[in-house]
Amino acid sequence: MTAANAVGPGAVVADLRRMLRPDQVLTDAASLDAYAHDDAEWAPFEPPLAVVLAEREEDVSAVVRLAAASGLHVVPRGAGTGLSGGANAMARSIVVSLERMTSIVEVNADERYVVAEAGVINDTLREAVAAHGLWYPPDPASYRISTIGGNVATNAGGICCVKYGVTGDYVLGMRVVLADGDVVALGRRTAKGVTGYDLTALMVGSEGTLGIVTEVTLRLLPLGGRDERAVVGSFGSLRAAGVAVAEITAAGIVPAALELIDRTCVEAVDAWQSLGLPHGVDTMLLAKVDEVGATGEALAASVARIMAEAGAISVAQAADGADADRLFLARRLAYPALERLGPVLTEDICVPRRAVPEMLSRIQATAAEHDVLIANIAHAGDGNLHPLIIAPEGDDAAKDRAKLAFARIVDDCRALGGTVTGEHGVGLLKLPGAREELGERVIALHAAVKRALDPLGTLNPGKAFPE
Amino acid sequence: MTAANAVGPGAVVADLRRMLRPDQVLTDAASLDAYAHDDAEWAPFEPPLAVVLAEREEDVSAVVRLAAASGLHVVPRGAGTGLSGGANAMARSIVVSLERMTSIVEVNADERYVVAEAGVINDTLREAVAAHGLWYPPDPASYRISTIGGNVATNAGGICCVKYGVTGDYVLGMRVVLADGDVVALGRRTAKGVTGYDLTALMVGSEGTLGIVTEVTLRLLPLGGRDERAVVGSFGSLRAAGVAVAEITAAGIVPAALELIDRTCVEAVDAWQSLGLPHGVDTMLLAKVDEVGATGEALAASVARIMAEAGAISVAQAADGADADRLFLARRLAYPALERLGPVLTEDICVPRRAVPEMLSRIQATAAEHDVLIANIAHAGDGNLHPLIIAPEGDDAAKDRAKLAFARIVDDCRALGGTVTGEHGVGLLKLPGAREELGERVIALHAAVKRALDPLGTLNPGKAFPE
Repeated sequence: MTAANAVGPGAVVADLRRMLRPDQVLTDAASLDAYAHDDAEWAPFEPPLAVVLAEREEDVSAVVRLAAASGLHVVPRGAGTGLSGGANAMARSIVVSLERMTSIVEVNADERYVVAEAGVINDTLREAVAAHGLWYPPDPASYRISTIGGNVATNAGGICCVKYGVTGDYVLGMRVVLADGDVVALGRRTAKGVTGYDLTALMVGSEGTLGIVTEVTLRLLPLGGRDERAVVGSFGSLRAAGVAVAEITAAGIVPAALELIDRTCVEAVDAWQSLGLPHGVDTMLLAKVDEVGATGEALAASVARIMAEAGAISVAQAADGADADRLFLARRLAYPALERLGPVLTEDICVPRRAVPEMLSRIQATAAEHDVLIANIAHAGDGNLHPLIIAPEGDDAAKDRAKLAFARIVDDCRALGGTVTGEHGVGLLKLPGAREELGERVIALHAAVKRALDPLGTLNPGKAFPE
Repeated sequence: MTAANAVGPGAVVADLRRMLRPDQVLTDAASLDAYAHDDAEWAPFEPPLAVVLAEREEDVSAVVRLAAASGLHVVPRGAGTGLSGGANAMARSIVVSLERMTSIVEVNADERYVVAEAGVINDTLREAVAAHGLWYPPDPASYRISTIGGNVATNAGGICCVKYGVTGDYVLGMRVVLADGDVVALGRRTAKGVTGYDLTALMVGSEGTLGIVTEVTLRLLPLGGRDERAVVGSFGSLRAAGVAVAEITAAGIVPAALELIDRTCVEAVDAWQSLGLPHGVDTMLLAKVDEVGATGEALAASVARIMAEAGAISVAQAADGADADRLFLARRLAYPALERLGPVLTEDICVPRRAVPEMLSRIQATAAEHDVLIANIAHAGDGNLHPLIIAPEGDDAAKDRAKLAFARIVDDCRALGGTVTGEHGVGLLKLPGAREELGERVIALHAAVKRALDPLGTLNPGKAFPE
């Protein structure tokens, strides 16, 4: 049976109930609503026909087979923390949630890898491997709630990326349910390996459009040998902070974190929970270095000196890990502080490092021009900016202006040599920007790969790249 | 015109001569012979119809278009230093060499990347970026003669991989000539970016079967901030050296190099150029750490102590970089010392680190059983072994025994959870092992991707994966 021989939704739901336990198949309105979209509520979505709570790889495979035979679509989902709409449901779709697949299959300290089911929470995995003296670096802001499968499907980044890379840099292999329901193991568990095409890398970041990742094998680092030191600078202007970022890079320093929060963020956080910041603070720069001993001490001192020379109003150095956490408080509070002001439309542009101050200036201009509130959290060391466009709840006109501002920011980013998404993925929100960025010939390559691996368009169609 | 409407070879050569300058099209017997294969002379090859020395992307594109229209194949080639036959010519093929495309297009110190044409020699690129205070880590043994395009096409490794990863870990983007002659830019120049599928990673290691890489953008590290210290242990047995490797890893140390050479290598090197080694040396372990200052000093001391505790006959520590080079002399001389004994059939297996001693024991048993000489160079810290099977020149019976030993080693590697190729690529030599390792369903995925991007089979067919 092919997509041409579509089967009615009712019959499919009945089939699902026969194949799985009753509590694995949700069709009540509240559940369909809860699973209809991820954190990108600004992107389009429709309620799915059903939500399946998969507990085993076989469940995922069975649902995909059924969907393929019935001309339906499967939308895979981890914790639903995505910010681009990659897990948003569509017409004639079944949402397959992997949140119940939470086994940590193996932690191998000799080879330094972990094998985990897709539904394991990033932070749970992090703690499990730490007990073996190992470290999994990728730390998306959602690490306490997002799943490792979702991290892989979006190639999630985080604060550590500037030194330690993104999720994909740690994926050695995976088990994947293909578009026909077949299951394959891709990649390897050895430290190196180049047998055949790197289909593992092709799957990473493909947002469930080429296969559904059910299990991942992740490379780990030793937990020890690092000694975190935080340095936080408060600046009177965006430009001064931008100079500090550029000079830190130019000095050949690769910090373990280099985050920037702008005036709108600082004000929102300070209004919510007073930080006791010195007067006149416009922009904060939060750096970490993690070299041990005298080397780390010297690097932290260099970062502090560069910040001071760039004109920081004040520079604080953490004495220990707890003190570092305190200094990074403003960064951690930024997103929730802003969400208090209204629904947030999150951008994820990445520009050349040198272009960060110029990009931030243009964003300020766009905010003024379109009369919207835009706050900026930036992984400044990577040039990865998250302009957060905030429209007051229920203000449709502001929402429309926010969408115009979103498009303008993407255009400016492209003009400065940037990319439309640094770490959140294209999903649905970034399809127009991705069309510009990729160009028709490269989009045709994407479509050819998609057709080759999913000829019926069963898996999450319409996401990840513009057709 | 399609493959079905094949055009005669003579007409095609005439077309090539019209399209290019006369000195860019070689058809004399000596040239066809010289370009008929890479360094894997044990793999099958046939002379090409012509060799084209491309000087511009447009040359590559024109040749691919002509080949596609004439039902011919294009075999791309860098320096021809490959060890798996990936650049071996075949019937009805045109070899396109990129060795004349040697421009370094841009070195960007702010963003830490380099843009280089495919024909730039690895070492030339390394020196060019060093002049800007930058470092390109991947260091295949061939780095003084191999091209960066070939490194990317095979996802080449090297000694630094144990700490710094392989070529693919540094590829941000590329320009590629597709199977229809169209040219696309893939990837990015920003530090992060996840727009669309990671087609850049798909191209890396695909051995020119999906596209011909004409230009690459490579991520770089700061040149400074490292201080190389070498520690070399001489062991009386393979097992003692294996224990040292395992204990270094277990101590959470990530060395910048951890190489092993076995008794056959040690003897070949010592017979050629006396190393003044202590009596009874069977296996040498060569380590480097590159942390600066007291940290590096302490790590080097730990490595030395672990070697001594594992039973090393002697342990030497280098006082400086020149001293470190002297200590690594045996490693550098190993391959040429062995080539003096006869043609070398090179394996490239990668096993779990813990399995290195067992794998080496099995290789010794295979050598005895098949009456062949097998020497081992190993990137021990990665579990990546290069058993070098040597047959005396002109001894066909020994050559047949060598091939049997090759297959047996691959079987043993697979049984220990290893992969058939750690860094050299499948090419032609590893097709049988790759068939075992990948399995039919994953091979079908490879074939689907190949058909999607190269429906006529124009680009280097029959390489990289078994059809």
